[in-house]
Amino acid sequence: MEFSSNLLEKAVNEMAQLPGIGKRTALRLVLHLLKQPQERTEFLTEALLKMRTEIKLCENCYNVSDKIVCAICENKNRDHQLICVVEDVRDVMAIENTGQYKGIYHVLGGKISPIDGIGPSQLKISSLVEKVNSGKVRELIFALSSTMEGDTTNFYIYKQIKNNELVTSTIARGIAVGDELEYADEVTLGRSIVQRVPFDHSFKNN
Amino acid sequence: MEFSSNLLEKAVNEMAQLPGIGKRTALRLVLHLLKQPQERTEFLTEALLKMRTEIKLCENCYNVSDKIVCAICENKNRDHQLICVVEDVRDVMAIENTGQYKGIYHVLGGKISPIDGIGPSQLKISSLVEKVNSGKVRELIFALSSTMEGDTTNFYIYKQIKNNELVTSTIARGIAVGDELEYADEVTLGRSIVQRVPFDHSFKNN
Repeated sequence: MEFSSNLLEKAVNEMAQLPGIGKRTALRLVLHLLKQPQERTEFLTEALLKMRTEIKLCENCYNVSDKIVCAICENKNRDHQLICVVEDVRDVMAIENTGQYKGIYHVLGGKISPIDGIGPSQLKISSLVEKVNSGKVRELIFALSSTMEGDTTNFYIYKQIKNNELVTSTIARGIAVGDELEYADEVTLGRSIVQRVPFDHSFKNN
Repeated sequence: MEFSSNLLEKAVNEMAQLPGIGKRTALRLVLHLLKQPQERTEFLTEALLKMRTEIKLCENCYNVSDKIVCAICENKNRDHQLICVVEDVRDVMAIENTGQYKGIYHVLGGKISPIDGIGPSQLKISSLVEKVNSGKVRELIFALSSTMEGDTTNFYIYKQIKNNELVTSTIARGIAVGDELEYADEVTLGRSIVQRVPFDHSFKNN
């Protein structure tokens, strides 16, 4: 791509470093900003920069937060003995959106993935193990994605737990609500048969 | 979507105003920035802001440029009597990439589209008509998209031309190089038959 302006080229190149944004898309986005009033770009850049410099990770669960402790960990009405282990902030948001969970979270910040150079030390695993081994936790729910990396991470954490009283669980895998059985993949369908639940459970909310 | 941080929410909302970027994609992009070193965000925001505030439109052809007159208009080796009328900067880049065009451009900045509230006065039409009617232009190539809006714009400009010597042309429409005839739409195939060219022309480069 040949640019008639270095300023434009630089902006496009920076934009194209975002995941899933190619050069063409970046150009489209940057030219859109060029057509809009200048404030639009000012608002966008200010919001991004402010977010990046001022946002904190909750010192308890590592969820993103404006304060030192996030709103979920601060909430006295939530069950602080029930911890749901998730990969990242988006998973917290997804679970919160269901309105079905009353415990707190622990955000690992990724999963163990040697191929991407991510080892246990780069994740928030040791603080979780400490929390659990201190005996203040009743149940740990593993809600990582069911990939090889997710399973490895689950197993790595599980092996370090020395709290015999602790209940561990994983979120249920199975056919999505509203899905047709015939289109489900074999592993999921197989698991949903093996791990079947008593009939009326599905109508109850915890 | 419920956010645990107002800073995050604001950044996502600003990002989601870009065309084709929904809230989920915006969240993914913003969280990516959060994982990267802070300089990444600084580079991005600086490049965007600098581009938006310092970039100029060439005073002759309205192409984006770092200087008052763009490199294409400044180039003495190009044919300044041959003007190609295009919608926006991306079209200039696309034609430049072919390496087949030696004239200069005129960037309208859009096309006449009453449904989007864009009239002739919002486009760089009057300056083009002035240029053409001054008699310094030999040929005008219309390279707008062949939609109703593009045709309207072509027609609007054409009607105002009072230079009897002027040659006008439009870029050739037809089956793309390498495409199969059977999959071409009827209008394109029909036009490519009616507007057929003598056999050896297609091998010549101007």
